[in-house]
Formats: sequence, structure tokens, C-alpha cells
Amino acid sequence: MSGTDRTKGAVALEPAPVIILIDPQLGENIGMVARAMLNCGLTRLRLVRPRDGWPNATAEAAASGAAEVIEAVQLFDSTAAAVADLQQLYATTARPRGMVKQVVEPRLAARQIEGAIAGGEKVGILFGPERSGLVNDDVALADRVIEVPLNPAFRSLNLAQAVLLVGYEWFVLRASQDRTEPQRLDRGEAPLADKAEMINFFQRLEGALDDAGFLFPPEKRPGMVRNLRSLFGRLALTQPEVNTLHGIISALRDYEPPGEAPSAEVDRVFEK
Amino acid sequence: MSGTDRTKGAVALEPAPVIILIDPQLGENIGMVARAMLNCGLTRLRLVRPRDGWPNATAEAAASGAAEVIEAVQLFDSTAAAVADLQQLYATTARPRGMVKQVVEPRLAARQIEGAIAGGEKVGILFGPERSGLVNDDVALADRVIEVPLNPAFRSLNLAQAVLLVGYEWFVLRASQDRTEPQRLDRGEAPLADKAEMINFFQRLEGALDDAGFLFPPEKRPGMVRNLRSLFGRLALTQPEVNTLHGIISALRDYEPPGEAPSAEVDRVFEK
Repeated sequence: MSGTDRTKGAVALEPAPVIILIDPQLGENIGMVARAMLNCGLTRLRLVRPRDGWPNATAEAAASGAAEVIEAVQLFDSTAAAVADLQQLYATTARPRGMVKQVVEPRLAARQIEGAIAGGEKVGILFGPERSGLVNDDVALADRVIEVPLNPAFRSLNLAQAVLLVGYEWFVLRASQDRTEPQRLDRGEAPLADKAEMINFFQRLEGALDDAGFLFPPEKRPGMVRNLRSLFGRLALTQPEVNTLHGIISALRDYEPPGEAPSAEVDRVFEK
Repeated sequence: MSGTDRTKGAVALEPAPVIILIDPQLGENIGMVARAMLNCGLTRLRLVRPRDGWPNATAEAAASGAAEVIEAVQLFDSTAAAVADLQQLYATTARPRGMVKQVVEPRLAARQIEGAIAGGEKVGILFGPERSGLVNDDVALADRVIEVPLNPAFRSLNLAQAVLLVGYEWFVLRASQDRTEPQRLDRGEAPLADKAEMINFFQRLEGALDDAGFLFPPEKRPGMVRNLRSLFGRLALTQPEVNTLHGIISALRDYEPPGEAPSAEVDRVFEK
């Protein structure tokens, strides 16, 4: 799925949560995390003890298009240092092993984080190393654990996917604050047909169908007309589309089955 | 994020939407899509003209853990054939170029799909090739377009990520039907402390603080006690945690600063 429009600025999400990767192993994964973050309007990435050091050319290459996240990375040598300035901390892990923790889904976590940020707090989200996940001591630092609802028989996500799902919920929540409709009709520049145009079209259609003997018998005609008007009415047709439908009616009316004299057809077209 | 529990069966999501990849290029991406699908409890994958043919060893390797999706792949030589048995079709694309289409976000699409499936319809979701996306003719076949809300300045997702986000919304919706709380306290086997245990703890704590001269002056004591009880009360403590807190109080009370005779300390410990 593509469609990046570089003429549009990022949605202004700041202040936003900080993403903190503990002991990340592969530079490629760090780069993919940077991309997933920017997909979701998140730009503040902290790294704790990246295995291959920092800066990391592999991470930069994998972050293609998300250089602004990589360039702003902050490096730390301990989890405690990386979270020191935060008031609220979330850990992402499949299971808080042996600890008593609030476990929250990403959608609710997004609302909680939004509330904390609105209250002036700084919020961070911890992600553990690729294979092993967060160690208990890091989970213990967190106020809550985020658990992504996924098929319990197959929960394995890569690091960037985990960041993407958590960031996505955050982005949807924030974006929804500037927006009214989760569904819209994308009709480009074409204006919707007004009701006069629609009624004109209905009458044209019904006349053509009367001519063709379709709206028969007469006692059923009113119901058939209502059904047809409902059908076309719920399409929210644009003006060009209505014109197209007029053209279709004309074309169908003018069609004559093979076998009749083609000259007659031509004559009728020119009669109009 | 890991935590797959292979002792648990997949959530029973069938009937579920079919995922249809048009002209997928890289076997690795097909494998990653299979994993993202299984993360979300989706198992029915259709391929239209995969570039490197089918079966594809690269896809199988990349699908590690999601072999059941790969083994059930259906192969088609046209989009029309791949969607022929479906009543509802969604296209995923950043923008329905020049077409009048309902554009819907994944969360609402999940509800629509659920409704269609509940009504006995078969639903499919089209994903285009990695770089170019769906061609207009394929988008035209779809009833609606799914557009994932993402940072408009950086919308680029890989194929598996797009499948993951759309599938995630579907999974969350379906899973929520069997579930009550998006947040829960995971406390393992430990029972919550009952109120008698909490009150006993509060009295122990307050007694210790009275001894230490902390709850002073007397006219402020009731408010301080209420605040302390509120603080510990909202933790929803387990019995083991309450025992731990009792232990902390004992330990703190028994501590003596360095400089006193160590023998006195030892004596007091053994006195108990």
C-alpha cells in the first residue's frame, strides 16, 4: 500500500509518546521501526544498548524515507536512564511473567496515553529485543503492559509490526480528533447530482421502461417504480454518472437486434 | 513481541474474509502475508499470477509457523476468477484514482464485513503488487476501498503490514465478541487481598508511622491516613503483595543506621 503524499506535512501529533527499544539486535529492524513510527506520526526514538552500536548504516538504509526519525535518535546505556524523564511507562510484552500488572490493549492504551499527555505528562513505550522480549526488570519499571490482541495460537510479530500496531492505534485516535467520518464517498471533483437531476433521470428511465412494457401490469407499477428509485437513489450519484446513465438508456433504446436493416438504425439516430 | 501459545487453538473466526494478492512479486512477501494473516486468525489466501509461480519455496520459508495458510493457498490466473464466488469485495489502495468509490477505514470495514458474513455473504479483500498497487480495473471490481489512516506525509507500508493492519481490525472486532474487558489485572494465581487483610495492613502501617512520628501533627492525621489508604487501596493488592508490604514495614522498622554496635542488631533479630 503506497500513496505517500510528500506535499503534505506530517499530522501534528506532538507531544506524542516516545518509543524505546531495549537491546535491539539488527540495524534493519531499527530502520523498519523508524518507518513504522513515521507511518503513525511518531518521531521520537530512544535506543538502549543497540547491539551493533550507533550510528548504524544498516538502520539508516532500512529507514528509507524515515531519516528524520533516525537522525533524532537518543542513545542510552540503561533502561533507567532512557525512561528517567517520563511520568508514564508502558511495556509491550506477551505476558507479564510473575508480576502484578495492568494489562491493556493498544486501543485503550492510546486513550490512556492521550489523557496523560493532555495532563502534561511524558509517556514512553518499551519494546524488548527481537527474540527474547523485555526482561522482567524492565517490565517492572512500567506502569502498565500493552498486549496486542492477536490469534493466541500465533502471536509472533516482528519488532516493527509490534510498533506499527501500537502506533496505529495512537494515530487513529489522534487523527480522529480532526475528523468526522470513518467513511466518505471519494468522488474527486464531480458534484453530486441534485434532486431535480435525479427526478429527471427517474422519469426518463420509467418512461423508457413503460415504452418497453417492463412496468407491467399497471397495478404493480407504483411499487416497481419505488423500488427502482430506491435502488438508484442510494447510490449517491454524481452529475457525470447521471449523464452516463442517460446515455445508457439512449443506447439500449436505440439498440436493434442483428437482422434488421442497419440503415434504419442510422436513420433513427439522426432523427434526434 | 512473542508469546505464541501452541497449546491454544486458533480463535474460531471462520467464516472470515478471503485475502487476495494480485500479482505479488516476492515469495518472501507472500510468506510474511501468511504470517500476518495467521496473527489475525485469517487462513484463506488466494494468489493471482504470483510472479515466481506456485508453490514457492521462498514463500514457504518466510511463512515460518504459518504453513497452514500456505498449504491452503488457492491459485488463479485472473482477478475475475479469484473473486467470482464472493458477494462483497474490498480493495486496499491509497486512493481510488478517478473512480467514485466508498472509502472506508479498516475499523469500519471490519464491521461491514462482519455484517456481510453474518448475512451469509462471502467477502474478499484485494491487495495489489508491492510497488505499483492495484490497477484501476481491479479497484473497479470492488464495492469499497479500504484506506488505512496513516500519517499523510508517510503512508508507505509493505504488503504484510497492510494485511496486518486490516486483519488486526477484523480480529479485534471478532475477539471482542467473546470478551468483556480491554483491560484486566493479570495477577496469575495470586488471590486479591480481602478487605480485612487490607484494613489489618493499614492499621499496621499507621501504627508504624505513628511510632515514627510521621502522622503529625494530630489534627492532620485523619487526612494523611485517608490519603495513604487511598493510595494503597487503588493498587488492588494481592495477598502475597500485602505480605511483602508487611515485610517491608518490619524491615524498615528494624533497620538501624551504621554506627551502632552490630551485636545489638543480631541480638534483636534472634529475640523474635
